[in-house]
Amino acid sequence: MNQPIDEFSLISNYFKELTGQQDVAVGIGDDAAIIDIKADKQIAVATDTLVASVHFPNDATAEQIATRALCVNLSDMAAMGATPKWFTLALTMPKELACSEWLQGFSQGLARVAKQNNVSLIGGDTTAGPLSISITVLGETAVGCGLCRNGAKPDDIIYVSGTLGDGAAALYQLQHRDLAQNNRLTERFYQPQPQIELGLGLVNYASACIDISDGLVADLNHLCKASAVSASIKSQLIPIHSDIKQAYSEHSKQWALTGGDDYQLCFTVPAIVQGNFEHWVRSKNFDVTAIGRMAALDHNQNYLEIDNQVSSITAGGYTHFT
Amino acid sequence: MNQPIDEFSLISNYFKELTGQQDVAVGIGDDAAIIDIKADKQIAVATDTLVASVHFPNDATAEQIATRALCVNLSDMAAMGATPKWFTLALTMPKELACSEWLQGFSQGLARVAKQNNVSLIGGDTTAGPLSISITVLGETAVGCGLCRNGAKPDDIIYVSGTLGDGAAALYQLQHRDLAQNNRLTERFYQPQPQIELGLGLVNYASACIDISDGLVADLNHLCKASAVSASIKSQLIPIHSDIKQAYSEHSKQWALTGGDDYQLCFTVPAIVQGNFEHWVRSKNFDVTAIGRMAALDHNQNYLEIDNQVSSITAGGYTHFT
Repeated sequence: MNQPIDEFSLISNYFKELTGQQDVAVGIGDDAAIIDIKADKQIAVATDTLVASVHFPNDATAEQIATRALCVNLSDMAAMGATPKWFTLALTMPKELACSEWLQGFSQGLARVAKQNNVSLIGGDTTAGPLSISITVLGETAVGCGLCRNGAKPDDIIYVSGTLGDGAAALYQLQHRDLAQNNRLTERFYQPQPQIELGLGLVNYASACIDISDGLVADLNHLCKASAVSASIKSQLIPIHSDIKQAYSEHSKQWALTGGDDYQLCFTVPAIVQGNFEHWVRSKNFDVTAIGRMAALDHNQNYLEIDNQVSSITAGGYTHFT
Repeated sequence: MNQPIDEFSLISNYFKELTGQQDVAVGIGDDAAIIDIKADKQIAVATDTLVASVHFPNDATAEQIATRALCVNLSDMAAMGATPKWFTLALTMPKELACSEWLQGFSQGLARVAKQNNVSLIGGDTTAGPLSISITVLGETAVGCGLCRNGAKPDDIIYVSGTLGDGAAALYQLQHRDLAQNNRLTERFYQPQPQIELGLGLVNYASACIDISDGLVADLNHLCKASAVSASIKSQLIPIHSDIKQAYSEHSKQWALTGGDDYQLCFTVPAIVQGNFEHWVRSKNFDVTAIGRMAALDHNQNYLEIDNQVSSITAGGYTHFT
């Protein structure tokens, strides 16, 4: 087949500092990695792929691509209440990128996010082809303690973390090469902070959780469908950053509802534990906002009401970079 | 971003029968899968990517692509002496393939290999882009019982399973659209049988093991390098199928040495257990052949002698489909 990129020298040259040895019995360089699992743990596994000109613009730097790829995958661990520990990298790249400069940037970005989140690269595959990055993250969760989508009940309170609409605003800015570039937004796009600590704590309070990747409306719909309940939210309660409200006042509400790429958590908390939950949130200084309540599913199976109106929106308004 | 393929309906329509529930606490449809790990086990993890026109010809059927993608990944579990149990699928495909016919063929191929090897699809990601398939397989291995590349010692006997050169012959046939198509070779290319049972047994006998994906010479070099020993093999001992010897007599030896894509195992057995090993092999009817012996590494760090000559070949003669 195609002359493969020399994986051995590539990994030892560029990815070595990513390969932590904590709970890794066999690391990179064998047919598979072998990891040690503690007796009272389950393993959470999530895979996400980023494709050039679909999930990031063609002019994104190698470092930006790497940080986004790993952050997006770690966000799935946050949404499961899991501690991310290991990841594999399948890197497909055209020959013109297989140069020292690009690979150094890519591995530096990956190393930065890996270090911040204490995860080790345990294996992977590099191959020639159109640029795409597929990462599989593995994390530990205590047995029976995963945070799933299907546990929400009527009257549970709906929360979101952080601010919404940032992902869509960043995308707009990148697509329109907006001169008034907002660095906060660029960073939110290329390095969305996975809400790992929040997710780990939510295991004690939340009945259901999902990360907001497709947009609040789409992801809350997924959660409602999985839990067989409906949600009623108030749009004026949705947290939107003042940056966006000011710069993009005509778009901000729509972006917060359907824009996607926010990688914040949307979760439900039973009313009976709300007091304890809010006390814990304040003690930890987490940024979360209640935006509505769950209700029983009506016979029309409408999953979502926004401002007391049945929502007909089910997915975001996606655009792409090409 | 790009209008995503609707993952929920795609998975429930096409991949449902792949999602076994054995030791799967949370399966497809959440942010991550959660799997149950037995207390005395370690987890083996391997990732491999197949890219259209690099790892398979553009005219390969969906079913052929799927079977090859999963078999190649399962082969890594065989080489580690692990029992494959779960896998995730990152499927990137152009919109023109996102039709019922292609997806049905793909999922049927995947389901066939998954069933044969008792592995469950636990998650993944489908996205629009140039066709590529990245699979991560997870398997169980008893603590301390993995089969690594780095355990070979001087005087260990070198074995290979099956016949070599089939992968290269199949590739030649596909590239030259050879009219005398040999179905055995086509099947060997698209559905190389992962040597799982052999790998599991080798845990009791072998000192090191690798699967032959890059070619015997390249992979035996990897094993020697990892073990810091050298190998001496006799080319006339290398098992080559009579089909290939007859049809491609001028190529067969070279293909067996450097062709790659065989997905057989190359492993080393200490001389002291050779008798027990061969007895076990006969009782199980496994097809393995001794092809040489390990030796101490000389001061020139020559890893491989073929027919008493230092081999200057270090990698296969790869070609591609475009």
